[in-house]
Amino acid sequence: MSAESGRQYVVAIVGATGAVGEVLLRVLEERRFPVGELRPLASERSVGKSISFRGERVVVAEARPDAFEGADFVFFAATGTLSRELAPEVARRGGIAIDKSSTWRLDENVPLVVPEVNAAALAKHSGIVAVPNCTTIPLVLALEPIRRAAGLRSVVVTTLQSVSGAGKPGLEELERQLEASARGETLAPETFLAPIAHNAVPVCESFRDDGYTTEERKLLDESRKILEAPELDVAMTCVRVPVPVGHSESVLVETERPLSPDEAREALASFPGISVRDDPSRNLFPTPADAAGQDDVFVGRIRRDYGSQRLWLWIVCDNLRKGAATNGVQVAEALL
Amino acid sequence: MSAESGRQYVVAIVGATGAVGEVLLRVLEERRFPVGELRPLASERSVGKSISFRGERVVVAEARPDAFEGADFVFFAATGTLSRELAPEVARRGGIAIDKSSTWRLDENVPLVVPEVNAAALAKHSGIVAVPNCTTIPLVLALEPIRRAAGLRSVVVTTLQSVSGAGKPGLEELERQLEASARGETLAPETFLAPIAHNAVPVCESFRDDGYTTEERKLLDESRKILEAPELDVAMTCVRVPVPVGHSESVLVETERPLSPDEAREALASFPGISVRDDPSRNLFPTPADAAGQDDVFVGRIRRDYGSQRLWLWIVCDNLRKGAATNGVQVAEALL
Repeated sequence: MSAESGRQYVVAIVGATGAVGEVLLRVLEERRFPVGELRPLASERSVGKSISFRGERVVVAEARPDAFEGADFVFFAATGTLSRELAPEVARRGGIAIDKSSTWRLDENVPLVVPEVNAAALAKHSGIVAVPNCTTIPLVLALEPIRRAAGLRSVVVTTLQSVSGAGKPGLEELERQLEASARGETLAPETFLAPIAHNAVPVCESFRDDGYTTEERKLLDESRKILEAPELDVAMTCVRVPVPVGHSESVLVETERPLSPDEAREALASFPGISVRDDPSRNLFPTPADAAGQDDVFVGRIRRDYGSQRLWLWIVCDNLRKGAATNGVQVAEALL
Repeated sequence: MSAESGRQYVVAIVGATGAVGEVLLRVLEERRFPVGELRPLASERSVGKSISFRGERVVVAEARPDAFEGADFVFFAATGTLSRELAPEVARRGGIAIDKSSTWRLDENVPLVVPEVNAAALAKHSGIVAVPNCTTIPLVLALEPIRRAAGLRSVVVTTLQSVSGAGKPGLEELERQLEASARGETLAPETFLAPIAHNAVPVCESFRDDGYTTEERKLLDESRKILEAPELDVAMTCVRVPVPVGHSESVLVETERPLSPDEAREALASFPGISVRDDPSRNLFPTPADAAGQDDVFVGRIRRDYGSQRLWLWIVCDNLRKGAATNGVQVAEALL
């Protein structure tokens, strides 16, 4: 794909009516991505709906292989099943599939990319590029400047993940349960494994046989692949909280060489895609509500552990933007 | 104080109209604590209100030294200022002050007690006994059986604390903000340092000069005192979440000798005051909503870290009950 000035591209979005798909449309507009033709696609169920792009309505067509003819970039923001079936059809037709599902992330022929961290991995692909999980992206983005400054020995992380990580069904379930609660009623959980309104649910996605959840294992495997650190020690618990948008991560990092909180703050603040919001004397710290609608990953509460050289970080990120759509569009920009 | 069968006691509650005070009344009823006379007390502002105890209304009087004449037990569930001023007045009159504030917890003449863990510390007191912080109680209760089984080397904890940890003002702020949000409005924070509805706020209480919060430091100092382990390595971040009642803690424990998840489950399940709720094959795990209204501390998600011998635990507890009122009443029971 050449970077000819002024060239316009054919862009398709599979899952254009979902939570990430809608944000993808906004991010393509905001970043003035050179879209010559937009093809919103979805499963049969959503065909005939329309979406808004640059002030015009565009009708959603069915996501089928022939919809990818002539497409330069196809963003997948739907189920893993659709990605598994259709991403190779994009590649076969000479386009590039940029996939948000977990399907291809650990495939050794598929780059798994956070552009600020490992854009170089894009040099070698076979028509499919994977976007990491929405918890992995902010974690590795915040870890990378620390690694460059002092090396990484181990990471302990507890996530507090918003309901939009489970898409529109997650957002709707929180809203319905809060409304029911205000009426003194309780609704049975559907999307999550326990009621999420007024609660914290220590399971994201589903359990594996080893007692971990699929979400937790992704954080380990994907961080190791992106950071090219196959032995990196990442310990994690992933929790769902009643927040609409914005994932938070409470992270304890052990570096190879001592790094002071000031040095860490400096390394983070000068890294692209990161905003440091950290001044206890002014009660300054980032929350998921601050991150919602923003593209940056915000870091605060940077401080030395009382009993060791380890550093605490508090990381927040809009899981639909940098955790998904924005990262996908940045991958496409890097490929231009 | 003798344990004569049938003896009834004069019990006073300072802060009887607050969130913890109200639960104290319920817990005294439920546990049939031998209350011969109840004296609900409060600051001037609440004088003249009445509370319900064993089906009768009792008028609230002002918390002043002379209200403690003849009192056997005085529960303090109000501000630290009141505790500092008035707890010695209880002791001076021969009663025992059981204080929920942080005022006396680190005083070397004051036992800091979770009865299942260190009831023996009650043998020596000067008329004041302190109840630990609502995050410390479930943590040390869950750590104690693990320590007895395999020793404790280090602990990493991220808390997800409910708004009732800040009393009725916290509960009311969440409710008001959720109502405003449903109307499309935003209310400025008052009790917390950032909006708490639909958010996660990585600051509980207030910042210290060292970049930690007062809540975080309590977790370290109090755990060390209760467990009589002055060098215990506890690393912590404390977060407020939009949950009405029930604190959660995501905990990674390093033991001195290897302990399997099954051994840990066994040790926890056989310890008083703990319920293990942990079976991934049946999607069984505890949430704060499960703990609300219960006296036990619930533990689940017990599993080995992928990269070490450390164990993950997920601990939840009703912060108003075992985290405050129930623990206080258990202290009084142990003193009978």
